[in-house]
Amino acid sequence: MDHGGEYAPDEKVELLGTWSSPYVFKVIWALTMKGVEYEYVEEDLRNKSGALLSLNPLHKKVPVLVYRGKPVAESDVIVEFIDEAWKDRGGGGRILPEDPYERAMARSWVIFARDVLSPPIWKWFTAPGEEEQEGAREAAVAQLLVLEEELGRKEFFAGDCVGLVDLSLGALAYVIPIYEEITGTRIVTEERLPCLSAWMGRFLSSPPAKDHLPPLEKLKLSFLGERTL
Amino acid sequence: MDHGGEYAPDEKVELLGTWSSPYVFKVIWALTMKGVEYEYVEEDLRNKSGALLSLNPLHKKVPVLVYRGKPVAESDVIVEFIDEAWKDRGGGGRILPEDPYERAMARSWVIFARDVLSPPIWKWFTAPGEEEQEGAREAAVAQLLVLEEELGRKEFFAGDCVGLVDLSLGALAYVIPIYEEITGTRIVTEERLPCLSAWMGRFLSSPPAKDHLPPLEKLKLSFLGERTL
Repeated sequence: MDHGGEYAPDEKVELLGTWSSPYVFKVIWALTMKGVEYEYVEEDLRNKSGALLSLNPLHKKVPVLVYRGKPVAESDVIVEFIDEAWKDRGGGGRILPEDPYERAMARSWVIFARDVLSPPIWKWFTAPGEEEQEGAREAAVAQLLVLEEELGRKEFFAGDCVGLVDLSLGALAYVIPIYEEITGTRIVTEERLPCLSAWMGRFLSSPPAKDHLPPLEKLKLSFLGERTL
Repeated sequence: MDHGGEYAPDEKVELLGTWSSPYVFKVIWALTMKGVEYEYVEEDLRNKSGALLSLNPLHKKVPVLVYRGKPVAESDVIVEFIDEAWKDRGGGGRILPEDPYERAMARSWVIFARDVLSPPIWKWFTAPGEEEQEGAREAAVAQLLVLEEELGRKEFFAGDCVGLVDLSLGALAYVIPIYEEITGTRIVTEERLPCLSAWMGRFLSSPPAKDHLPPLEKLKLSFLGERTL
Protein backbone atom coordinates (compact mmCIF):
# COMPACT_ATOMS: atom_id res chain seq x y z
CA MET A 1 0.00 0.00 0.00
CA ASP A 2 1.22 3.47 -0.83
CA HIS A 3 2.17 4.90 2.56
CA GLY A 4 0.86 8.40 3.10
CA GLY A 5 0.34 8.91 -0.62
CA GLU A 6 -2.75 9.37 -2.72
CA TYR A 7 -5.13 6.48 -3.00
CA ALA A 8 -5.84 5.55 -6.58
CA PRO A 9 -8.78 7.45 -8.03
CA ASP A 10 -9.93 4.48 -10.13
CA GLU A 11 -10.33 2.09 -7.21
CA LYS A 12 -13.86 1.07 -6.42
CA VAL A 13 -15.41 2.78 -3.40
CA GLU A 14 -18.73 1.68 -1.92
CA LEU A 15 -20.78 3.28 0.82
CA LEU A 16 -23.39 1.32 2.77
CA GLY A 17 -25.87 3.74 4.29
CA THR A 18 -29.45 4.50 5.10
CA TRP A 19 -31.29 7.56 3.80
CA SER A 20 -32.22 9.03 7.20
CA SER A 21 -28.85 8.77 8.97
CA PRO A 22 -26.95 12.00 9.71
CA TYR A 23 -23.79 9.90 10.12
CA VAL A 24 -24.15 8.64 6.57
CA PHE A 25 -24.58 12.17 5.25
CA LYS A 26 -21.44 13.26 7.07
CA VAL A 27 -19.54 10.65 5.07
CA ILE A 28 -21.30 11.58 1.81
CA TRP A 29 -20.28 15.23 2.34
CA ALA A 30 -16.66 14.21 3.01
CA LEU A 31 -16.54 12.09 -0.17
CA THR A 32 -18.11 14.98 -2.09
CA MET A 33 -15.52 17.45 -0.76
CA LYS A 34 -12.75 15.17 -2.03
CA GLY A 35 -14.46 14.45 -5.34
CA VAL A 36 -14.31 10.71 -4.70
CA GLU A 37 -16.73 8.68 -6.79
CA TYR A 38 -18.55 5.93 -4.98
CA GLU A 39 -21.39 3.48 -5.31
CA TYR A 40 -24.11 4.00 -2.71
CA VAL A 41 -25.86 0.92 -1.30
CA GLU A 42 -29.05 1.54 0.69
CA GLU A 43 -29.45 -0.65 3.79
CA ASP A 44 -32.71 -1.44 5.55
CA LEU A 45 -31.69 -1.37 9.22
CA ARG A 46 -34.73 -3.42 10.25
CA ASN A 47 -33.51 -6.17 7.96
CA LYS A 48 -29.73 -5.84 7.73
CA SER A 49 -28.06 -7.36 4.69
CA GLY A 50 -25.52 -10.14 4.89
CA ALA A 51 -23.05 -7.70 3.35
CA LEU A 52 -23.48 -5.22 6.22
CA LEU A 53 -23.19 -7.92 8.89
CA SER A 54 -20.03 -9.33 7.36
CA LEU A 55 -18.44 -5.94 6.65
CA ASN A 56 -19.20 -4.49 10.10
CA PRO A 57 -19.50 -7.48 12.43
CA LEU A 58 -18.41 -5.54 15.53
CA HIS A 59 -20.95 -2.71 15.38
CA LYS A 60 -23.46 -3.88 12.69
CA LYS A 61 -24.18 -0.23 11.86
CA VAL A 62 -24.05 2.13 8.89
CA PRO A 63 -22.19 3.95 7.49
CA VAL A 64 -19.61 1.49 6.22
CA LEU A 65 -17.15 2.61 3.56
CA VAL A 66 -15.65 -0.16 1.46
CA TYR A 67 -12.35 0.50 -0.27
CA ARG A 68 -10.68 -2.28 -2.28
CA GLY A 69 -13.14 -4.66 -0.63
CA LYS A 70 -11.96 -3.65 2.84
CA PRO A 71 -14.41 -1.98 5.23
CA VAL A 72 -14.09 1.10 7.42
CA ALA A 73 -16.86 1.68 9.98
CA GLU A 74 -17.85 4.52 12.35
CA SER A 75 -18.44 7.88 10.70
CA ASP A 76 -15.70 9.77 12.57
CA VAL A 77 -13.16 7.13 11.60
CA ILE A 78 -14.39 7.12 8.00
CA VAL A 79 -14.13 10.91 7.64
CA GLU A 80 -10.53 10.93 8.88
CA PHE A 81 -9.76 7.99 6.57
CA ILE A 82 -11.18 9.88 3.59
CA ASP A 83 -9.13 12.94 4.51
CA GLU A 84 -5.93 10.91 4.84
CA ALA A 85 -6.44 8.51 1.94
CA TRP A 86 -7.28 11.23 -0.60
CA LYS A 87 -5.32 13.93 1.08
CA ASP A 88 -4.66 16.26 -1.81
CA ARG A 89 -7.97 15.76 -3.55
CA GLY A 90 -10.89 18.10 -3.92
CA GLY A 91 -9.12 21.40 -4.39
CA GLY A 92 -10.34 22.58 -1.01
CA GLY A 93 -7.47 20.99 0.83
CA ARG A 94 -7.84 18.98 3.98
CA ILE A 95 -11.02 18.32 5.95
CA LEU A 96 -8.93 18.54 9.11
CA PRO A 97 -6.48 21.42 9.56
CA GLU A 98 -2.75 20.73 9.18
CA ASP A 99 -1.58 22.03 12.53
CA PRO A 100 -1.60 19.42 15.34
CA TYR A 101 -3.19 21.76 17.90
CA GLU A 102 -5.90 22.88 15.49
CA ARG A 103 -6.57 19.23 14.59
CA ALA A 104 -6.98 18.45 18.29
CA MET A 105 -9.42 21.34 18.69
CA ALA A 106 -11.49 20.20 15.70
CA ARG A 107 -11.68 16.66 17.13
CA SER A 108 -12.69 18.10 20.51
CA TRP A 109 -15.64 19.93 18.95
CA VAL A 110 -16.77 16.69 17.32
CA ILE A 111 -16.80 15.06 20.78
CA PHE A 112 -18.61 18.11 22.18
CA ALA A 113 -21.30 17.78 19.53
CA ARG A 114 -21.75 14.07 20.23
CA ASP A 115 -21.55 14.01 24.04
CA VAL A 116 -22.61 17.45 25.24
CA LEU A 117 -24.81 19.06 22.57
CA SER A 118 -26.83 16.18 21.10
CA PRO A 119 -28.37 14.74 24.31
CA PRO A 120 -30.29 17.91 25.34
CA ILE A 121 -31.42 18.55 21.74
CA TRP A 122 -32.81 15.02 21.54
CA LYS A 123 -34.39 15.41 24.99
CA TRP A 124 -36.03 18.68 23.93
CA PHE A 125 -37.50 16.99 20.86
CA THR A 126 -38.75 13.89 22.66
CA ALA A 127 -39.75 15.31 26.09
CA PRO A 128 -43.26 14.13 26.99
CA GLY A 129 -44.30 17.18 29.04
CA GLU A 130 -44.13 20.93 28.42
CA GLU A 131 -42.06 21.65 31.53
CA GLU A 132 -39.51 18.95 30.76
CA GLN A 133 -39.36 20.15 27.15
CA GLU A 134 -38.70 23.72 28.25
CA GLY A 135 -35.91 22.61 30.60
CA ALA A 136 -34.23 20.55 27.89
CA ARG A 137 -34.59 23.42 25.44
CA GLU A 138 -32.79 25.82 27.76
CA ALA A 139 -30.06 23.23 28.36
CA ALA A 140 -29.65 22.82 24.60
CA VAL A 141 -29.57 26.59 24.02
CA ALA A 142 -26.84 26.92 26.66
CA GLN A 143 -24.66 24.53 24.63
CA LEU A 144 -25.63 26.12 21.31
CA LEU A 145 -24.41 29.43 22.76
CA VAL A 146 -21.00 27.80 23.27
CA LEU A 147 -20.99 26.99 19.55
CA GLU A 148 -22.22 30.50 18.72
CA GLU A 149 -19.19 31.94 20.48
CA GLU A 150 -16.81 29.48 18.81
CA LEU A 151 -18.21 30.28 15.36
CA GLY A 152 -18.29 34.03 15.84
CA ARG A 153 -17.90 35.92 12.58
CA LYS A 154 -16.32 33.04 10.68
CA GLU A 155 -18.11 31.68 7.61
CA PHE A 156 -17.66 28.10 8.77
CA PHE A 157 -16.22 26.51 11.90
CA ALA A 158 -13.14 25.65 9.87
CA GLY A 159 -12.83 29.22 8.50
CA ASP A 160 -13.59 30.05 4.87
CA CYS A 161 -14.54 26.50 3.86
CA VAL A 162 -16.38 23.56 5.35
CA GLY A 163 -14.22 21.36 7.59
CA LEU A 164 -14.52 18.53 10.11
CA VAL A 165 -16.62 20.44 12.66
CA ASP A 166 -19.01 21.71 9.99
CA LEU A 167 -19.49 18.15 8.71
CA SER A 168 -20.16 16.86 12.23
CA LEU A 169 -22.69 19.57 13.01
CA GLY A 170 -24.08 19.75 9.49
CA ALA A 171 -27.16 17.56 10.02
CA LEU A 172 -28.37 20.03 12.67
CA ALA A 173 -28.87 22.55 9.89
CA TYR A 174 -31.80 20.55 8.49
CA VAL A 175 -32.81 18.56 11.59
CA ILE A 176 -33.38 21.51 13.93
CA PRO A 177 -35.92 23.29 11.66
CA ILE A 178 -37.89 20.02 11.45
CA TYR A 179 -37.76 19.54 15.23
CA GLU A 180 -38.91 23.15 15.63
CA GLU A 181 -41.82 22.60 13.27
CA ILE A 182 -42.93 19.38 14.98
CA THR A 183 -42.64 20.71 18.54
CA GLY A 184 -44.02 24.15 17.69
CA THR A 185 -41.12 25.74 19.59
CA ARG A 186 -38.01 27.56 18.39
CA ILE A 187 -34.45 26.81 19.51
CA VAL A 188 -32.15 28.53 16.98
CA THR A 189 -33.46 32.05 16.59
CA GLU A 190 -31.70 34.92 14.85
CA GLU A 191 -32.04 36.93 18.05
CA ARG A 192 -30.32 34.50 20.39
CA LEU A 193 -28.04 32.65 17.97
CA PRO A 194 -27.43 34.96 14.99
CA CYS A 195 -24.12 33.43 13.85
CA LEU A 196 -25.32 29.85 14.17
CA SER A 197 -28.59 30.67 12.48
CA ALA A 198 -26.72 32.16 9.50
CA TRP A 199 -24.30 29.22 9.46
CA MET A 200 -27.21 26.77 9.11
CA GLY A 201 -28.34 28.40 5.89
CA ARG A 202 -24.77 28.75 4.67
CA PHE A 203 -23.98 25.09 5.32
CA LEU A 204 -27.09 23.88 3.51
CA SER A 205 -26.06 25.77 0.39
CA SER A 206 -22.35 24.91 0.65
CA PRO A 207 -20.81 22.72 -2.09
CA PRO A 208 -20.76 19.41 -0.18
CA ALA A 209 -24.31 19.72 1.21
CA LYS A 210 -26.37 21.53 -1.40
CA ASP A 211 -26.93 18.51 -3.66
CA HIS A 212 -26.71 15.92 -0.89
CA LEU A 213 -29.52 16.22 1.61
CA PRO A 214 -32.10 13.65 2.71
CA PRO A 215 -35.71 14.06 1.52
CA LEU A 216 -36.90 16.47 4.20
CA GLU A 217 -40.63 15.74 4.09
CA LYS A 218 -39.99 12.02 4.42
CA LEU A 219 -37.57 12.73 7.26
CA LYS A 220 -40.23 14.76 9.05
CA LEU A 221 -42.65 11.83 8.89
CA SER A 222 -39.95 9.52 10.20
CA PHE A 223 -39.22 11.89 13.13
CA LEU A 224 -42.94 12.12 13.92
CA GLY A 225 -42.93 8.34 14.21
CA GLU A 226 -39.91 8.33 16.55
CA ARG A 227 -41.48 10.97 18.76
CA THR A 228 -44.69 9.06 19.32
CA LEU A 229 -43.02 5.66 19.88
CA MET B 1 3.00 27.63 14.72
CA ASP B 2 5.26 25.20 12.89
CA HIS B 3 2.87 23.35 10.57
CA GLY B 4 3.34 19.62 10.68
CA GLY B 5 6.81 19.98 12.13
CA GLU B 6 8.29 19.06 15.47
CA TYR B 7 7.03 20.92 18.49
CA ALA B 8 9.83 22.49 20.46
CA PRO B 9 11.27 20.13 23.07
CA ASP B 10 11.89 22.90 25.58
CA GLU B 11 8.31 24.12 25.70
CA LYS B 12 6.52 23.55 28.96
CA VAL B 13 4.05 20.68 29.00
CA GLU B 14 1.66 20.07 31.87
CA LEU B 15 -0.69 17.17 32.49
CA LEU B 16 -3.68 17.46 34.82
CA GLY B 17 -4.69 14.01 35.98
CA THR B 18 -5.86 11.84 38.81
CA TRP B 19 -3.94 8.79 40.05
CA SER B 20 -6.70 6.23 39.48
CA SER B 21 -7.76 7.18 35.94
CA PRO B 22 -6.93 4.76 33.10
CA TYR B 23 -7.43 7.65 30.65
CA VAL B 24 -4.70 9.61 32.39
CA PHE B 25 -2.32 6.67 32.23
CA LYS B 26 -3.00 6.31 28.52
CA VAL B 27 -1.72 9.87 28.08
CA ILE B 28 1.26 9.30 30.42
CA TRP B 29 2.26 6.26 28.34
CA ALA B 30 2.00 8.26 25.11
CA LEU B 31 4.17 11.07 26.51
CA THR B 32 6.65 8.45 27.75
CA MET B 33 6.82 6.81 24.31
CA LYS B 34 7.71 10.16 22.79
CA GLY B 35 10.17 11.10 25.55
CA VAL B 36 8.26 14.33 26.22
CA GLU B 37 8.98 15.85 29.62
CA TYR B 38 5.99 17.19 31.49
CA GLU B 39 4.87 18.45 34.85
CA TYR B 40 2.14 16.31 36.40
CA VAL B 41 -0.58 18.05 38.41
CA GLU B 42 -2.80 15.81 40.56
CA GLU B 43 -6.48 16.79 40.59
CA ASP B 44 -9.01 15.86 43.27
CA LEU B 45 -12.15 15.16 41.21
CA ARG B 46 -14.39 15.62 44.27
CA ASN B 47 -13.03 19.14 44.57
CA LYS B 48 -11.99 20.27 41.09
CA SER B 49 -9.42 23.05 40.87
CA GLY B 50 -10.09 26.41 39.25
CA ALA B 51 -7.33 25.51 36.79
CA LEU B 52 -9.17 22.36 35.66
CA LEU B 53 -12.50 24.14 35.33
CA SER B 54 -11.00 26.95 33.29
CA LEU B 55 -8.83 24.67 31.12
CA ASN B 56 -11.62 22.17 30.38
CA PRO B 57 -14.88 24.11 30.76
CA LEU B 58 -16.79 21.91 28.29
CA HIS B 59 -16.14 18.53 29.89
CA LYS B 60 -14.58 19.40 33.32
CA LYS B 61 -12.68 16.12 33.24
CA VAL B 62 -9.11 14.85 33.38
CA PRO B 63 -6.82 14.27 31.60
CA VAL B 64 -6.03 17.74 30.27
CA LEU B 65 -2.72 18.32 28.52
CA VAL B 66 -1.48 21.91 28.54
CA TYR B 67 1.00 22.95 25.86
CA ARG B 68 2.16 26.59 25.69
CA GLY B 69 -0.68 27.39 28.09
CA LYS B 70 -3.25 25.95 25.69
CA PRO B 71 -5.34 22.95 26.76
CA VAL B 72 -6.18 19.71 24.98
CA ALA B 73 -8.86 17.50 26.59
CA GLU B 74 -10.22 13.98 26.00
CA SER B 75 -7.63 11.20 26.13
CA ASP B 76 -8.12 9.98 22.55
CA VAL B 77 -7.68 13.51 21.24
CA ILE B 78 -4.63 14.05 23.45
CA VAL B 79 -2.91 10.86 22.30
CA GLU B 80 -3.35 11.78 18.61
CA PHE B 81 -2.12 15.31 19.41
CA ILE B 82 1.00 13.93 21.09
CA ASP B 83 1.63 11.66 18.11
CA GLU B 84 1.25 14.52 15.64
CA ALA B 85 2.96 17.28 17.61
CA TRP B 86 6.06 15.24 18.41
CA LYS B 87 5.88 13.06 15.38
CA ASP B 88 9.48 11.97 15.03
CA ARG B 89 10.26 11.73 18.73
CA GLY B 90 10.86 8.71 20.89
CA GLY B 91 12.81 6.51 18.52
CA GLY B 92 9.89 4.10 18.30
CA GLY B 93 8.21 6.02 15.51
CA ARG B 94 4.53 6.86 15.44
CA ILE B 95 1.87 5.79 17.94
CA LEU B 96 -0.53 5.48 15.02
CA PRO B 97 0.55 3.65 11.87
CA GLU B 98 1.39 5.69 8.75
CA ASP B 99 -1.00 4.03 6.32
CA PRO B 100 -4.49 5.60 6.21
CA TYR B 101 -6.31 2.26 6.25
CA GLU B 102 -4.24 0.93 9.14
CA ARG B 103 -4.83 4.20 11.02
CA ALA B 104 -8.58 3.75 10.50
CA MET B 105 -8.39 0.19 11.82
CA ALA B 106 -6.45 1.29 14.93
CA ARG B 107 -9.06 4.00 15.64
CA SER B 108 -11.84 1.43 15.15
CA TRP B 109 -10.33 -0.84 17.81
CA VAL B 110 -10.21 2.10 20.22
CA ILE B 111 -13.96 2.60 19.66
CA PHE B 112 -14.51 -1.15 20.05
CA ALA B 113 -12.72 -1.10 23.41
CA ARG B 114 -14.77 1.86 24.62
CA ASP B 115 -18.23 0.96 23.30
CA VAL B 116 -18.31 -2.82 22.98
CA LEU B 117 -15.74 -4.31 25.36
CA SER B 118 -15.80 -2.05 28.43
CA PRO B 119 -19.54 -2.20 29.28
CA PRO B 120 -19.73 -6.00 29.85
CA ILE B 121 -16.43 -5.98 31.79
CA TRP B 122 -17.78 -3.27 34.09
CA LYS B 123 -21.09 -5.13 34.38
CA TRP B 124 -19.28 -8.35 35.33
CA PHE B 125 -17.35 -6.51 38.04
CA THR B 126 -20.34 -4.68 39.49
CA ALA B 127 -23.16 -7.25 38.99
CA PRO B 128 -25.09 -7.70 42.23
CA GLY B 129 -26.06 -11.37 41.77
CA GLU B 130 -24.12 -14.47 40.76
CA GLU B 131 -26.28 -15.25 37.75
CA GLU B 132 -26.06 -11.71 36.38
CA GLN B 133 -22.32 -11.73 37.00
CA GLU B 134 -21.91 -14.98 35.11
CA GLY B 135 -23.92 -13.66 32.14
CA ALA B 136 -21.87 -10.47 31.97
CA ARG B 137 -18.66 -12.47 32.25
CA GLU B 138 -19.59 -14.62 29.26
CA ALA B 139 -20.54 -11.51 27.28
CA ALA B 140 -17.17 -9.95 28.14
CA VAL B 141 -15.27 -13.13 27.22
CA ALA B 142 -17.05 -13.19 23.84
CA GLN B 143 -15.63 -9.71 23.10
CA LEU B 144 -12.21 -10.57 24.55
CA LEU B 145 -12.11 -13.49 22.10
CA VAL B 146 -12.50 -10.97 19.28
CA LEU B 147 -9.39 -9.21 20.59
CA GLU B 148 -7.61 -12.57 21.03
CA GLU B 149 -8.12 -13.26 17.33
CA GLU B 150 -7.00 -9.76 16.33
CA LEU B 151 -3.84 -10.02 18.44
CA GLY B 152 -2.95 -13.55 17.35
CA ARG B 153 0.77 -14.20 17.47
CA LYS B 154 1.77 -10.53 17.37
CA GLU B 155 3.74 -9.11 20.30
CA PHE B 156 1.50 -6.08 20.51
CA PHE B 157 -1.66 -5.00 18.68
CA ALA B 158 0.50 -2.59 16.70
CA GLY B 159 3.09 -5.28 15.87
CA ASP B 160 6.54 -5.32 17.45
CA CYS B 161 6.01 -2.21 19.57
CA VAL B 162 3.25 -0.63 21.60
CA GLY B 163 0.83 1.50 19.56
CA LEU B 164 -2.54 3.23 19.83
CA VAL B 165 -4.60 0.08 20.47
CA ASP B 166 -2.17 -1.17 23.11
CA LEU B 167 -2.36 2.18 24.90
CA SER B 168 -6.16 2.14 24.82
CA LEU B 169 -6.40 -1.40 26.15
CA GLY B 170 -3.39 -1.09 28.44
CA ALA B 171 -5.25 -0.37 31.68
CA LEU B 172 -7.04 -3.73 31.32
CA ALA B 173 -3.68 -5.39 31.94
CA TYR B 174 -3.68 -4.27 35.58
CA VAL B 175 -7.43 -3.70 36.11
CA ILE B 176 -8.61 -7.18 35.12
CA PRO B 177 -6.40 -9.05 37.65
CA ILE B 178 -7.75 -6.77 40.41
CA TYR B 179 -11.35 -7.34 39.28
CA GLU B 180 -10.65 -11.08 39.24
CA GLU B 181 -9.26 -10.98 42.75
CA ILE B 182 -12.18 -8.97 44.14
CA THR B 183 -14.90 -11.03 42.44
CA GLY B 184 -13.16 -14.36 43.02
CA THR B 185 -13.77 -15.25 39.36
CA ARG B 186 -11.44 -15.46 36.37
CA ILE B 187 -12.01 -13.83 33.00
CA VAL B 188 -8.67 -13.84 31.16
CA THR B 189 -7.30 -17.35 31.53
CA GLU B 190 -4.34 -18.82 29.67
CA GLU B 191 -6.60 -21.62 28.48
CA ARG B 192 -9.28 -19.49 26.87
CA LEU B 193 -7.30 -16.35 25.99
CA PRO B 194 -3.63 -17.39 25.71
CA CYS B 195 -2.49 -14.52 23.45
CA LEU B 196 -4.30 -11.83 25.42
CA SER B 197 -3.10 -13.28 28.70
CA ALA B 198 0.52 -13.12 27.48
CA TRP B 199 -0.03 -9.62 26.07
CA MET B 200 -1.16 -8.36 29.49
CA GLY B 201 2.15 -9.35 31.08
CA ARG B 202 4.08 -8.06 28.08
CA PHE B 203 2.34 -4.69 28.13
CA LEU B 204 2.96 -4.21 31.87
CA SER B 205 6.69 -4.70 31.36
CA SER B 206 6.85 -2.67 28.12
CA PRO B 207 8.88 0.58 28.12
CA PRO B 208 5.96 3.03 28.39
CA ALA B 209 4.12 1.13 31.15
CA LYS B 210 6.73 -0.52 33.33
CA ASP B 211 7.60 2.59 35.34
CA HIS B 212 4.20 4.23 35.01
CA LEU B 213 1.47 2.28 36.74
CA PRO B 214 -0.94 3.37 39.46
CA PRO B 215 -0.40 2.04 43.01
CA LEU B 216 -2.23 -1.27 42.64
CA GLU B 217 -3.11 -1.93 46.30
CA LYS B 218 -4.61 1.55 46.61
CA LEU B 219 -6.48 1.01 43.35
CA LYS B 220 -7.91 -2.25 44.69
CA LEU B 221 -9.27 -0.46 47.77
CA SER B 222 -10.78 2.22 45.53
CA PHE B 223 -12.46 -0.45 43.33
CA LEU B 224 -13.84 -2.19 46.44
CA GLY B 225 -15.43 1.11 47.38
CA GLU B 226 -16.99 1.57 43.92
CA ARG B 227 -18.38 -1.96 43.96
CA THR B 228 -20.19 -1.54 47.26
CA LEU B 229 -21.61 1.92 46.48
